[in-house]
Amino acid sequence: MKGSESLLATAKTAGVQVCFANPGTTEIPLVEAFDQVDGVRAVLALSEGVVTGAADGHARMTGVPAMTLLHLGPGLANGLANLHNARRARTPVLNVIGEHATWHQPADAPLASDIELLARPVSGWVGRTSSAAAAATEFVEAHQAALRHRLPATLIAAADHMWSQGGEPADVPAAPARPAVADQRIAEIAKLLNAGRGRSALLLGGHTLTADGIRTAARIAARVGGEVFVERSPARIERGPGVPPVRSVPYFPEDVMRVFDGFSHLVLIGARTPVAFFGYRGMPSYPLPNRLEVHELADANQDAVEALRTLAEVTGSAAVELPRAERPQGPTPKGPLSAASIAAAIVLTQPDQAIVVNEGVSSGAAYPAIAAAAPPHCELTNTGGAIGMGMPVATGAAVACPDRPVINLQADGSAAYTVQALWTQAREGLDVTTVICANSRYQILEAELRRAGIEQPGEAAANLTSLGSPTVDWTAVARGFGVPANRVTTGEELVEALRRAHAEPGPHLIEAILGTPTKQRVKGALEPN
Amino acid sequence: MKGSESLLATAKTAGVQVCFANPGTTEIPLVEAFDQVDGVRAVLALSEGVVTGAADGHARMTGVPAMTLLHLGPGLANGLANLHNARRARTPVLNVIGEHATWHQPADAPLASDIELLARPVSGWVGRTSSAAAAATEFVEAHQAALRHRLPATLIAAADHMWSQGGEPADVPAAPARPAVADQRIAEIAKLLNAGRGRSALLLGGHTLTADGIRTAARIAARVGGEVFVERSPARIERGPGVPPVRSVPYFPEDVMRVFDGFSHLVLIGARTPVAFFGYRGMPSYPLPNRLEVHELADANQDAVEALRTLAEVTGSAAVELPRAERPQGPTPKGPLSAASIAAAIVLTQPDQAIVVNEGVSSGAAYPAIAAAAPPHCELTNTGGAIGMGMPVATGAAVACPDRPVINLQADGSAAYTVQALWTQAREGLDVTTVICANSRYQILEAELRRAGIEQPGEAAANLTSLGSPTVDWTAVARGFGVPANRVTTGEELVEALRRAHAEPGPHLIEAILGTPTKQRVKGALEPN
Repeated sequence: MKGSESLLATAKTAGVQVCFANPGTTEIPLVEAFDQVDGVRAVLALSEGVVTGAADGHARMTGVPAMTLLHLGPGLANGLANLHNARRARTPVLNVIGEHATWHQPADAPLASDIELLARPVSGWVGRTSSAAAAATEFVEAHQAALRHRLPATLIAAADHMWSQGGEPADVPAAPARPAVADQRIAEIAKLLNAGRGRSALLLGGHTLTADGIRTAARIAARVGGEVFVERSPARIERGPGVPPVRSVPYFPEDVMRVFDGFSHLVLIGARTPVAFFGYRGMPSYPLPNRLEVHELADANQDAVEALRTLAEVTGSAAVELPRAERPQGPTPKGPLSAASIAAAIVLTQPDQAIVVNEGVSSGAAYPAIAAAAPPHCELTNTGGAIGMGMPVATGAAVACPDRPVINLQADGSAAYTVQALWTQAREGLDVTTVICANSRYQILEAELRRAGIEQPGEAAANLTSLGSPTVDWTAVARGFGVPANRVTTGEELVEALRRAHAEPGPHLIEAILGTPTKQRVKGALEPN
Repeated sequence: MKGSESLLATAKTAGVQVCFANPGTTEIPLVEAFDQVDGVRAVLALSEGVVTGAADGHARMTGVPAMTLLHLGPGLANGLANLHNARRARTPVLNVIGEHATWHQPADAPLASDIELLARPVSGWVGRTSSAAAAATEFVEAHQAALRHRLPATLIAAADHMWSQGGEPADVPAAPARPAVADQRIAEIAKLLNAGRGRSALLLGGHTLTADGIRTAARIAARVGGEVFVERSPARIERGPGVPPVRSVPYFPEDVMRVFDGFSHLVLIGARTPVAFFGYRGMPSYPLPNRLEVHELADANQDAVEALRTLAEVTGSAAVELPRAERPQGPTPKGPLSAASIAAAIVLTQPDQAIVVNEGVSSGAAYPAIAAAAPPHCELTNTGGAIGMGMPVATGAAVACPDRPVINLQADGSAAYTVQALWTQAREGLDVTTVICANSRYQILEAELRRAGIEQPGEAAANLTSLGSPTVDWTAVARGFGVPANRVTTGEELVEALRRAHAEPGPHLIEAILGTPTKQRVKGALEPN
């Protein structure tokens, strides 16, 4: 068989379900192979930022690597920002990047560029095919590396290796297990917690943020008199009955300092030490109280779930009964829309087992603040800060979970990056409801200008942070890409529109026009999720 | 003054007129600086592919470096594909990429990544600011490098260097001149041409493609019995009365072989040796007849214009009278639309001194084939093959030349990459008329499948090359971004729509629905421009 066919057959053996793609001429042998080899579904996207974000969303939901197929250096380049987010989410995305035929590479044809350099900043592994015969084995290397590092892996596939005969499917070893945390380390942390010398904060991240993981941590916290926090911008966090509500690490450094005030120990469990999202004058990079000692139980790649389970045993917390968490009543959205009332409307109408993709930016933090009132769901967020992840990740999550409704809480500025995702949602008939928080501004930048002491931006600064003149008509854009859409301006209308969207299959977009924002910073309201 | 202010003041001194921007928090000091320092206009775009493509288009028209302002690694990443095209166009784009404050960089905050690695494949020069005091001088280094190499240059500007006081505007030396071609080389080429041992093809590229440059080459060809060709996909080519029509190097290698058949010498004048756009089985990378000898008069960076002028003198061609080129009558577009009739309608209605940005891909080659019938104009094309350049380059060209109408002949698949450019066209009131060649397919990929022997693509391949289900409604998308739009299906309607668009100021989009394509390859019709 051809190299391309052996690669795809091996991808199937490896459990890869979907390949999100935007192919070109160098990928033609792989395009053909989808018709020769069953089992991996090809999903087309109109631009590569959608391809990579969708692969991230798919893999976040399935835990299985999703594949991308991209066209040479420029195709990869267009997908890098969402691969950056996938890297921060520790998502095992498998990129296959078509490259010129080996004998054609020295000619430096117009589309030639250094694909390896481009791939390295976002990949835990970068490699090249060496022949049609070896391509499948090299794909397995990429696959194993993606799972070993929990990072994107990038295989650069030369066109002649793909179109040539001589390929053979390769065996796929069992997925590498996450490295275990040493028992001694767990014992040390248990001793620390049990010693009771000052209050402890348990900071959960990565794959611990399941209902089970959060409950286990809450039992430990209850036993040792600590509190559970979750990392800012988790790749995926579950909420539902019996999942105790937990606080998130805030965005601005002064707020991070504040939430950890009074704690003596911070125990990292699959999470990194909190770091300021940006460096601010007079603020430290690690915004933690001086007296807070940081201890790592498990890093983001280790088996933090198992470590947490063992820690619960060792601390005698495994059997702790958690207080029965009543599902609170969510607020009722009324009148002109705000970030808070948009979140309230989503919570109020949210179907069971929804996947909420939150790229609300300055409108985003309002949702997790009240999400305990929602039925069981999981939330996926922007892990790397590269905007334009919301619509693509929602697309990939919907492909991964056709039986679960997807709600995309989406800032307008970020939506403008990768709005082409709507077309794939329409084509695949995906059950995604997008709520555009339309404030027609880069509101987070206005907040940053104020932090920099600019209360009255000049004309140029005002222009560079405004999305008005003209305001984008998101309903028209959505319809252009094949997604039915409507516009709402009040909480009541939004509730009604959400109910209709949830009742109908297929994608919908609701443009939620925010009321005039006040210039004053309302606590939390301007904080990005 | 602040580092950011010194940088911007120096940019002004250097002649930079416009900074296309999509800033974030790390760029706030530069955002502020636009209000403190006059002279450089900031133009916002909704995504970075628009920013970099617009800078390319602006610099192609003005010859002066255009600046970009991008947000960290992900912002640069989103703009890389059009910087790849700018690199191939040899356009001096000046990228300023905001970076975390120096003291915050070791913390590896979520948005941190290796900006230098990302920048290198598209830049002739990459550097970092070292302090507020040195930032302006470092900007000058970037500026000089961009002009010396005729390539994008990338300066990574740390936020603390930008916000700190101590900046001072720097002196800007005269723009580096292009390296001169040695007289001896010119004499050798002259001797070769005058010897008359076989026919010579003069291949023009780069900055020689002005009315004057083409005329000079035509005089030499007339004198020595040769023929003038122009490189495939020129960054900018002028046409008009007295500019002799010249043949382009074709796209497919077998066609390249054919056009140079019968020639003994190929003289490169600011152009590279023709290279196959992709490597095809059984085809060489350099598709030239065996007996064709290649000689380089001037490479793409040298002063090919001056070398051409001298060559004309030395060959005794300077005074050759060219046959008076009559402007031919263009064909009249009638009935269902084809690539040919779209080109005909554009030519028929084209205002004087238009700038035609041609990213027609499979509908693109029809335009240059008949452009001699159009009034004086220049054409900008996709130099690097990274699709999504048309709308951004048209935007930048329109900002550069507010008194010239811009016509963007635009393939639909490529339009979907950077359609956000329409918003900037609306905001800035740019006189751009976009004609979407809507065939709802990646037609070039269908052609490539047939070249690979696949006459009847399977379902997966058909899906991966089709833009149908749903077809994009380009008029809705355009209106969503603030650009008035309409749809046409016949040559007569297109002529009418173009006339209306040209008569009104501001941007317009016309969706030109192509008739059902035949599966047969019509010579030239499927050849990308």
